[in-house]
Amino acid sequence: MKTAILGFGTVGVGVYEMLGKARGLEPGPVLVRPGKEDAPFKVSSMEAIVSDPSVEAVAEVMGGIEPAFRYACQAMEAGKHFVTSNKALVAAKGVELNRLAREKGVAFLFSAACGGGVPFLHNLTLARESDSILSLGGILNGTTNYMLDAMQRLGLDYAEALADAQRLGYAEADPTADVSGLDALRKIMLACAVAYDVLPAEGLLNEGIESVTAADVRHFRSRGYTCRLLASGGRTESGVYSYVEPVLLRDGAAECSVLQNYNMARYEGRNSGPIVLMGQGAGRYPTASAVLRDLSGILRGERAMFSESCARGRVDNSGSVHCYYVRLPADLAGEIAAESTEYEGEVARLVTKPMSVSAMHETARRLREQGAALFFAAIRD
Amino acid sequence: MKTAILGFGTVGVGVYEMLGKARGLEPGPVLVRPGKEDAPFKVSSMEAIVSDPSVEAVAEVMGGIEPAFRYACQAMEAGKHFVTSNKALVAAKGVELNRLAREKGVAFLFSAACGGGVPFLHNLTLARESDSILSLGGILNGTTNYMLDAMQRLGLDYAEALADAQRLGYAEADPTADVSGLDALRKIMLACAVAYDVLPAEGLLNEGIESVTAADVRHFRSRGYTCRLLASGGRTESGVYSYVEPVLLRDGAAECSVLQNYNMARYEGRNSGPIVLMGQGAGRYPTASAVLRDLSGILRGERAMFSESCARGRVDNSGSVHCYYVRLPADLAGEIAAESTEYEGEVARLVTKPMSVSAMHETARRLREQGAALFFAAIRD
Repeated sequence: MKTAILGFGTVGVGVYEMLGKARGLEPGPVLVRPGKEDAPFKVSSMEAIVSDPSVEAVAEVMGGIEPAFRYACQAMEAGKHFVTSNKALVAAKGVELNRLAREKGVAFLFSAACGGGVPFLHNLTLARESDSILSLGGILNGTTNYMLDAMQRLGLDYAEALADAQRLGYAEADPTADVSGLDALRKIMLACAVAYDVLPAEGLLNEGIESVTAADVRHFRSRGYTCRLLASGGRTESGVYSYVEPVLLRDGAAECSVLQNYNMARYEGRNSGPIVLMGQGAGRYPTASAVLRDLSGILRGERAMFSESCARGRVDNSGSVHCYYVRLPADLAGEIAAESTEYEGEVARLVTKPMSVSAMHETARRLREQGAALFFAAIRD
Repeated sequence: MKTAILGFGTVGVGVYEMLGKARGLEPGPVLVRPGKEDAPFKVSSMEAIVSDPSVEAVAEVMGGIEPAFRYACQAMEAGKHFVTSNKALVAAKGVELNRLAREKGVAFLFSAACGGGVPFLHNLTLARESDSILSLGGILNGTTNYMLDAMQRLGLDYAEALADAQRLGYAEADPTADVSGLDALRKIMLACAVAYDVLPAEGLLNEGIESVTAADVRHFRSRGYTCRLLASGGRTESGVYSYVEPVLLRDGAAECSVLQNYNMARYEGRNSGPIVLMGQGAGRYPTASAVLRDLSGILRGERAMFSESCARGRVDNSGSVHCYYVRLPADLAGEIAAESTEYEGEVARLVTKPMSVSAMHETARRLREQGAALFFAAIRD
């Protein structure tokens, strides 16, 4: 199956190389920016790809919503299968693309958009056919995992950990999407859409790691906790929930063994029980390997990850309840109902009484509006 | 797709219940022993299943090689897809069944035979299409993992851990296949066949946990090691290797977080990097969920896990080299080239110089022939 590639950056080069070696697949034209056509296989016009009848599939690895969305529509309209690693695209336009793909009888697959090399969405797609998914989530962002691990094991502060991650190519020059939790949030949105037919569009909550300090990490460590940024989703009687926040885990929890920029995704099936998948969540070859798995899947007849009825919907995070660790200015400690509070100069560190995810995120928003520097993390004992 | 079930034990009941709820699947007749037909859906003759044109697939969960092999052949000859959880059957007759299934154009899938609820073989099948598998393995036997974990965390001795496992239903009345490593060996044989087109038939080595003692475990713990029974396979220039043996892992290794009767399977793809999968390796619903995943896979067009060219072959374990922990009678300590040796009364505990898996297993065999009580485990630092 000849496959055109949109984008020739880190992942695109990997996809191109792997297509030359995989069974039943071959590389087609590669879309690059005008002026970058320095080899015969590179083209700078989407029309050249769409009008080429020998191209049966298009792999988009350029990122961003436009022009990726327009190209995806053009490819599908021309009867070509569409595979993407672009989580922003699928989070924003997945419902429309799913509908168009079904209308045109082509595939729409995006394994690489959640978990990189970890075959999470594929297995979720299979599991929901014969099982019922009680909950899902995990460590879905490698950049922040690298930083939290470096802060804990190497004793770095936040700025040093970020600089290290950037130097190693694990963080972008503008790391906002990663450190704010938005990247992990987009991934959990896709996983919820696969498992529950609801692409969360309203009510989502995400807290990143931007406000964690070396002193916070020392405090966790002295109490036997490891901090990870976890995405969580599930379905209860009141609907689908979906959020991202830092979590403190007891040493020995499986998440604590996820080091550097690795990802760990999990789901719990009513019948299968908990299933955990770990691997490289980013990088040229791991991400390209997920794109290739989708393309091989098309050869075997795979067509969709979202069901026919997948639609946008509201999530409700008021039913998920934890105790939280909160570090905030000492004079604001009284604003939150606490089990215990420790003062350290002008800073208070408290463990809250059990409170809902939505209440904690709302409290943090309100206190930050008042100018408070604050960090919080759910406690899982 | 109406699916007949062969066997109505722990897993069979789970498969029957799940078939009633899964999309596109429905339960067919269930084969039970003569005299056990206490419900209309139970039949005691395979002919009743083979001759029923409404039955499109057969799920075998009875175990043992015969009559399972004969029934499998009958089902395939009659044009019915065949799914099994029976690792002994696939390890012994997988090549023949793969050939027959391809000849008859039916499916032959056996996810549940390796890893129980963990979707290991399925993902390996996919990965080998577009990637190249450098190595694979993991904790593939839940019984022995439960026992090793109980010996370590609860301080039980071997007999107590085994009795506990039996009481909880994690070990059979005759636990030999589990504790000897044979069960894990059969599973790694299947994984090698999927990844390398070679179903290992000669040269296999397996050492179980039958000779580990509470004193051994205390010794590991004092040095920061956790013991797990690991299956290992891979391909090097000299061919495929495949063996099972106890391994000492540094605390913090991912395997140490695998508690109770959980399984952890892993493979390393040249492109994907290491991929780890964890979950319940046994039990009614986890195992049944793997059978159901295969049946759903048939609806999507999946037909085979072994490639067309899969054949039996010899493995070579002389290229895998480790240092080993060996506990043996003090007067035999001189028989093995050691980095360090500690004496404790009549017992010696030594760390060997690097030696090959085949040399270590051969040495142990030879010393045991002389009547020596001996335990060994590879050391992974």
